[in-house]
Amino acid sequence: MKVSTISEHPQHDVTMEGAANTRMRMLIGPDDGAESFHMRHFEIAPGGHTPHHAHDYEHEIVVLHGTGVARSDEGDRPMSPGTVLWIPANEKHQMRNTGAEPLEVICLIPAPHNCTS
Amino acid sequence: MKVSTISEHPQHDVTMEGAANTRMRMLIGPDDGAESFHMRHFEIAPGGHTPHHAHDYEHEIVVLHGTGVARSDEGDRPMSPGTVLWIPANEKHQMRNTGAEPLEVICLIPAPHNCTS
Repeated sequence: MKVSTISEHPQHDVTMEGAANTRMRMLIGPDDGAESFHMRHFEIAPGGHTPHHAHDYEHEIVVLHGTGVARSDEGDRPMSPGTVLWIPANEKHQMRNTGAEPLEVICLIPAPHNCTS
Repeated sequence: MKVSTISEHPQHDVTMEGAANTRMRMLIGPDDGAESFHMRHFEIAPGGHTPHHAHDYEHEIVVLHGTGVARSDEGDRPMSPGTVLWIPANEKHQMRNTGAEPLEVICLIPAPHNCTS
């Protein structure tokens, strides 16, 4: 068993095109031996956002802190602590911080997609 | 995209032998079409615990609320909001609520293990 805290994991800027003011921590990833899926933490500053894009793998997301919107084919969906998002593969999506506090989410992806969004 | 809140998902008692005062919500599971891994929410009442057991699949866990301990081969490890647990397959483990508030965690498992702990 590996025990850690979110805050002790190093935080990296998300430099992917279309991202703004977003930082990521890999909480449980390939370096831990996680072979099925990976847990990441994203912190989006007020006004920041992830890319508006689609890819061939899914996201499972739960919001920890802050407020924002999830941009989807059905319009903007509100996000706040306790919001759960299921984004199937190949569906276009984006998270935007529309509040005054950092928007923090846990976002999981299947292995081996060790990417930054 | 499916958007929900933790609280709107039905909560079921965990009836597995060795569990006490523990309830589970399936947040993203097979009914949603999640084929790689599943997100669940566990709420362990004060004094309650999950089974002390091992199984052939891993857990990825993040604590949302409350305090407790994760029982491991290396002893009891403290849990509080923001604690991250990586429990590899076949490693014995248990979560116990040692505090006065409900202990709430997000716990993910690979599909197709649609079980209750």
